[in-house]
Amino acid sequence: MGLLGAIEAGGTKFVCGIGTKDGEVVERVSFPTTTPEETMAQVVSFFEGKDIEAIGVGSFGPIDPIKESDTYGYITTTPKPHWSQYNIVGHMKSKFDVPIGFDTDVNGAALGEHLWGAGQGLDSCIYITVGTGIGAGAVVNGKMLHGLSHPEMGHIVVRRHPEDSYKGTCPYHADCLEGLAAGPAISGRSGLQGVELKVDHPAWEMEAYYLAQALMNYILILSPQKIIMGGGVMKQKQLFPLIQRELRHLLNGYVQHASINKDIEQYIVSPQLGDNAGLCGALALARLALEEV
Amino acid sequence: MGLLGAIEAGGTKFVCGIGTKDGEVVERVSFPTTTPEETMAQVVSFFEGKDIEAIGVGSFGPIDPIKESDTYGYITTTPKPHWSQYNIVGHMKSKFDVPIGFDTDVNGAALGEHLWGAGQGLDSCIYITVGTGIGAGAVVNGKMLHGLSHPEMGHIVVRRHPEDSYKGTCPYHADCLEGLAAGPAISGRSGLQGVELKVDHPAWEMEAYYLAQALMNYILILSPQKIIMGGGVMKQKQLFPLIQRELRHLLNGYVQHASINKDIEQYIVSPQLGDNAGLCGALALARLALEEV
Repeated sequence: MGLLGAIEAGGTKFVCGIGTKDGEVVERVSFPTTTPEETMAQVVSFFEGKDIEAIGVGSFGPIDPIKESDTYGYITTTPKPHWSQYNIVGHMKSKFDVPIGFDTDVNGAALGEHLWGAGQGLDSCIYITVGTGIGAGAVVNGKMLHGLSHPEMGHIVVRRHPEDSYKGTCPYHADCLEGLAAGPAISGRSGLQGVELKVDHPAWEMEAYYLAQALMNYILILSPQKIIMGGGVMKQKQLFPLIQRELRHLLNGYVQHASINKDIEQYIVSPQLGDNAGLCGALALARLALEEV
Repeated sequence: MGLLGAIEAGGTKFVCGIGTKDGEVVERVSFPTTTPEETMAQVVSFFEGKDIEAIGVGSFGPIDPIKESDTYGYITTTPKPHWSQYNIVGHMKSKFDVPIGFDTDVNGAALGEHLWGAGQGLDSCIYITVGTGIGAGAVVNGKMLHGLSHPEMGHIVVRRHPEDSYKGTCPYHADCLEGLAAGPAISGRSGLQGVELKVDHPAWEMEAYYLAQALMNYILILSPQKIIMGGGVMKQKQLFPLIQRELRHLLNGYVQHASINKDIEQYIVSPQLGDNAGLCGALALARLALEEV
């Protein structure tokens, strides 16, 4: 039957699933992320006895996704207790004799959307998640973006909004994009959770101000054919037109392309795979691992 | 003998050359960029009667490098008089029955350095030129970076230096990276040409402040394995240690990699092809066009 296993390894919870090579999820479970011993025992137990051909792991980061590296397959310098320098691929390999795919959750999600979602038929797309943190992955020339390591697009430098005196939440950079625009910054600044803020609250204008700057830089540096924005904060659908308007204002006609001039609503979109974007991403990593055997 | 033709099409001057498939330039000429009629007549005259197998064109932009596009091979919306919507590839094809390669000058230079220079043996590198303008090209997974179009990395948003009140020179964005850090901004702000400023002039600290921000964003978004910085401004070699120090300060330990922690002098470097980086880039485009036939 040819089923694949998928692990969406998040800092708060792990989602595990079984799916087809066409990206259809047929079973899914989730459990909180505690210690590697406890959480990985639940993961292994879920997959045991299931006849799967490969497993994909889309993980929170930073990770080492470079196959030639000594620490390939590790979650590396995460501040999350117990998970720093954890060899997640090694552990899965010791339990299951199948190909294991491994990348960041967001590179996986970009690949999943490229195969089965909003990025189908394109050469490139980026997937951005805006939630507890901000992360992004990319497909370029049909392949996931790697180099020195994987992208860390959430931590780029942005220009501060003139009315924003919030110091920022990032432990490394204070007021980088993530520090000023991820969920904790929205609630830290307003004293309210994002879901409690009215759709016309000025916080959303400020959020769009920061996210549009990020998109401007992603476009000028990567020139993606599609921008897919997911994560908890992007469930606030009023953000899309605000971001699109602010992005056009920032670019000021510099990039002349119909995707921006005319069809921006089809250029900056929600994940077509919806809440399965992350799990389908891991499924896509499993499929890729099988193809590369 | 298998010689290739190369055209480095700049906004100020055109450099034409003949070289080998190994990137060795055996002949070069240059002439000022005036009108397409006049300049291209000189280009055609230079190549006529020379037994070349392919021609590469590395051009100032914006251009259309997407082969499937109706305007492939055009210099598109340049403000440079006479050159807007000029079909440079079409003109060369009408005169020479050989494969013609075409890309931005900086994507070409990135490919040239990847084949024969500082990026040899790597999967990825970026080439940045800092001169009259700021532009950058990239090789990712061994191929030049394209998507919607080509990168326009010189126009990213940067954070203004607290002591900088200069309005910026970019006609689209005023104070984007190019507007604040290209040659005209250095001279506009100080009243002196860059070459007239002493090596310990505070202008270089400010320049490094902006360029380090750009590198930070390029690293976080593209994760290149090597950063190559050329162009007139980067002949000021005192900039390299200033940029390297400021970049480490900005990243603040976030990207843990030996290339940044330990070997940053080998990570951020001058073009190994020196003043031939642009022409060798065009040669690399010719070689690629021949391989793709």
